[in-house]
Amino acid sequence: MPQLLKRLAFRVGAVPNERTNTLTSISNDGHYISLRPLIQLNTASEEEFPFEWVFAGTSKDIKVTHVKKGVVKQDFNFWLDTNRYLNVPNSHCGEINTVWTEWDSGSLAENGQVFPTGKGNPGVPFFELWHPLDPNRSDYVLLSGKKEIDLAAKAKSVVFKVVEGQGYDGMVIVTGNWAQGFLSKHDDGTVNGLNFLRTLTKYDGSKEAFVLYGPDAEKFPQEYSGFKVGDHAVLDGLKWEVIESS
Amino acid sequence: MPQLLKRLAFRVGAVPNERTNTLTSISNDGHYISLRPLIQLNTASEEEFPFEWVFAGTSKDIKVTHVKKGVVKQDFNFWLDTNRYLNVPNSHCGEINTVWTEWDSGSLAENGQVFPTGKGNPGVPFFELWHPLDPNRSDYVLLSGKKEIDLAAKAKSVVFKVVEGQGYDGMVIVTGNWAQGFLSKHDDGTVNGLNFLRTLTKYDGSKEAFVLYGPDAEKFPQEYSGFKVGDHAVLDGLKWEVIESS
Repeated sequence: MPQLLKRLAFRVGAVPNERTNTLTSISNDGHYISLRPLIQLNTASEEEFPFEWVFAGTSKDIKVTHVKKGVVKQDFNFWLDTNRYLNVPNSHCGEINTVWTEWDSGSLAENGQVFPTGKGNPGVPFFELWHPLDPNRSDYVLLSGKKEIDLAAKAKSVVFKVVEGQGYDGMVIVTGNWAQGFLSKHDDGTVNGLNFLRTLTKYDGSKEAFVLYGPDAEKFPQEYSGFKVGDHAVLDGLKWEVIESS
Repeated sequence: MPQLLKRLAFRVGAVPNERTNTLTSISNDGHYISLRPLIQLNTASEEEFPFEWVFAGTSKDIKVTHVKKGVVKQDFNFWLDTNRYLNVPNSHCGEINTVWTEWDSGSLAENGQVFPTGKGNPGVPFFELWHPLDPNRSDYVLLSGKKEIDLAAKAKSVVFKVVEGQGYDGMVIVTGNWAQGFLSKHDDGTVNGLNFLRTLTKYDGSKEAFVLYGPDAEKFPQEYSGFKVGDHAVLDGLKWEVIESS
């Protein structure tokens, strides 16, 4: 089922905080994008790149293992990753192993470790707290109630992927009223090669772009109706293929 | 300004969790009720009393001190307190000192200590994470956006207090569409003397009672329109006075 998760807290070390407005979109087929824009910008480098991190992957880039009721392991190997793209030092290295535990409240507690200096050296534990949003609503509505949870499980889930051979990698995931996208240019390696999208379809049908970042942002598809798998969309010369539609 | 806070996480010791659907109502004048119903009931004692804790106080029972931008101290001396009423061992003792820090996300991180064995002995630190809900909405909508925050600051705030001399203590706080109440019977000291209320006025004007607990729950006011300060409401023989209305 598609999911739209809002991060509530992030902790590395002792003190939790939340400096971002992070949403993670997970499509019905298991493709994912996590877009983590900073809310307040405190430094010149944050002004230049106002994101904590952005990553994305297809269902082949994550391994989900059931541990017990309410607990799953998720092992991530990102396809697209701003840290790797920008060659950020000491960020992480290789697969990220996480365990997700569902609380009675419906929130999801993610515990993991990153290994900034390689898996032979001690890892750095982290904790992230998430809550599913109702993807069919146009506010940050904490998903609760059986009827709403059942409806959310059937929310619209459409995924666009950049057709290979054009010098770009990219994916857009539409989950209910919310869409998020990652588009990077080959052989750039600077913030100029990165583009991100977050749009919301509002109650009156109009769209609001919360994030439309990067010099190639106009290449993102921003209309999501009437597509079936195998269809194409061409935006500002860039060809996308619909790899999922439900 | 009135506030309706939803607790997102609670930590005593190392591991956070959230087993309750806790809402704290704070009236425009600073009266407060925190109602913490458990979501899953695992033991016979939880079945008998399905609350982690409930407490309430008037603005005289809390001292709020500005520390710096985004940080306030809050020192609580509860007027009504289920732990004290039920004489729960090792719960807390005397004033509870807390520090609240606002995150960029708008969430509020509360850090404090309780002293179950008295202030002469080491305290037990705790952490609670809160986010303001939009009190004018009938779902768990995370408050965000300048327009919504400004409107929330003007939300309806009505407070009823049991008139003295009737053998009961009690308060109901109405915050926008949400109401919470605490009513306890003098000289009982068991769960049979405790009553709690949480109602929501829905979009169509109908009311849903999420919590209506206790043998005297029918004594709670459940209609909140048209009252001014000094007005009275009599419910099932119990007289309440309106001590705040805006």
